[in-house]
Amino acid sequence: MDLSLSDIKRDLLSGKPIVIFDFKGREEETDMVYYGGAVTWESINTLRKEAGGLICYVTGEDEAQEMGLNFLTEEWKSHPVYSRLIKKPAYGDYPSFTIWVNHIETGTGISDSDRAKTIRELHNLVQMYDGTKMNHFLNNFYAPGHVPILASRGLENRKGHTELVTTLADKLGLPRSMVIAEMLDNGKALNVEKAKYYSMSRGLKFIRGEDILKGL
Amino acid sequence: MDLSLSDIKRDLLSGKPIVIFDFKGREEETDMVYYGGAVTWESINTLRKEAGGLICYVTGEDEAQEMGLNFLTEEWKSHPVYSRLIKKPAYGDYPSFTIWVNHIETGTGISDSDRAKTIRELHNLVQMYDGTKMNHFLNNFYAPGHVPILASRGLENRKGHTELVTTLADKLGLPRSMVIAEMLDNGKALNVEKAKYYSMSRGLKFIRGEDILKGL
Repeated sequence: MDLSLSDIKRDLLSGKPIVIFDFKGREEETDMVYYGGAVTWESINTLRKEAGGLICYVTGEDEAQEMGLNFLTEEWKSHPVYSRLIKKPAYGDYPSFTIWVNHIETGTGISDSDRAKTIRELHNLVQMYDGTKMNHFLNNFYAPGHVPILASRGLENRKGHTELVTTLADKLGLPRSMVIAEMLDNGKALNVEKAKYYSMSRGLKFIRGEDILKGL
Repeated sequence: MDLSLSDIKRDLLSGKPIVIFDFKGREEETDMVYYGGAVTWESINTLRKEAGGLICYVTGEDEAQEMGLNFLTEEWKSHPVYSRLIKKPAYGDYPSFTIWVNHIETGTGISDSDRAKTIRELHNLVQMYDGTKMNHFLNNFYAPGHVPILASRGLENRKGHTELVTTLADKLGLPRSMVIAEMLDNGKALNVEKAKYYSMSRGLKFIRGEDILKGL
């Protein structure tokens, strides 16, 4: 496996996506991944046209808490109705969704430019001083919106793309601020071999969950 | 305007999408719209490739309530933190989002087939006897998932695509069970003239919000 951390970091910082497969026997899905600080409307355009899944913003659990956010599965634990909707998906882990937001300076929130704006502002927020994050977040975003915020429980607790990309950010010395979308094929998830071929043909780094677990 | 209700109904029932522009001065967005009862994985594939926006399931407020659902803006009114995120978007109406779900018999919930399964099961649910909807919903779906459920407040209260498509369903004598996604262009919403041209070239009915307000 020809993977160097500095090459991956250079790609991400320059606004080039990388491609990450989780694990055999888990979701078996491949996500296209951008660094939050390098996202432009063109990145969103690529994510929706080339990947096709849900375009999500990913940060750490600590960062999310500092913004005032909680996992929906936690939030709904004592809800009279929604608590009954909390179930483990087929792949065995609780989802990492918190809530869906738009930045207040967006139009409808869904265009490539709007989603890029929301994500860039989330990225700026994640790097703010802890004590100011929540107020800034609550004043400058609204919900429900069109960008889901996922929070990482850490790879020791969950082995999803959310945790893989925040672990990778840690290793690269970047803030936990990533954007992911599942790569889809007609009808189903894109097969891992096709994802590898796609990555190779576009010159994108292809990384497996195992590589990140092993420390690359 | 060459629009007959029976032609529109025939298209929708046969699994062909229609195209709806809201209003000048509002979102000014065009949505691609399918009937919930005719959705297949190919419809989801078309929505993500040709429309590109958020693929949402739309039903009425009554149907949503019978399922146990509430608008998130209502749900969060007394939330210590999230209440501060409730703000009106630029186009002036509160969002019509309730929650995001997957059917329990899906894989990860995001593939074309998984989203079509979730939507078909929501469609079956909407037509059930009122008294059984909630239990069936809470037992057979989980949240948070990948299909947002929008609920219509009625065109007298909100002039969005959510309300336009449920009003249209009423006029057509169909259950309030529709699937919508915004049509996007590079960077921004698809211009209404381009949306008209697209519809014409694909033989899809193009409808304006005004047409629905006027009773078609």
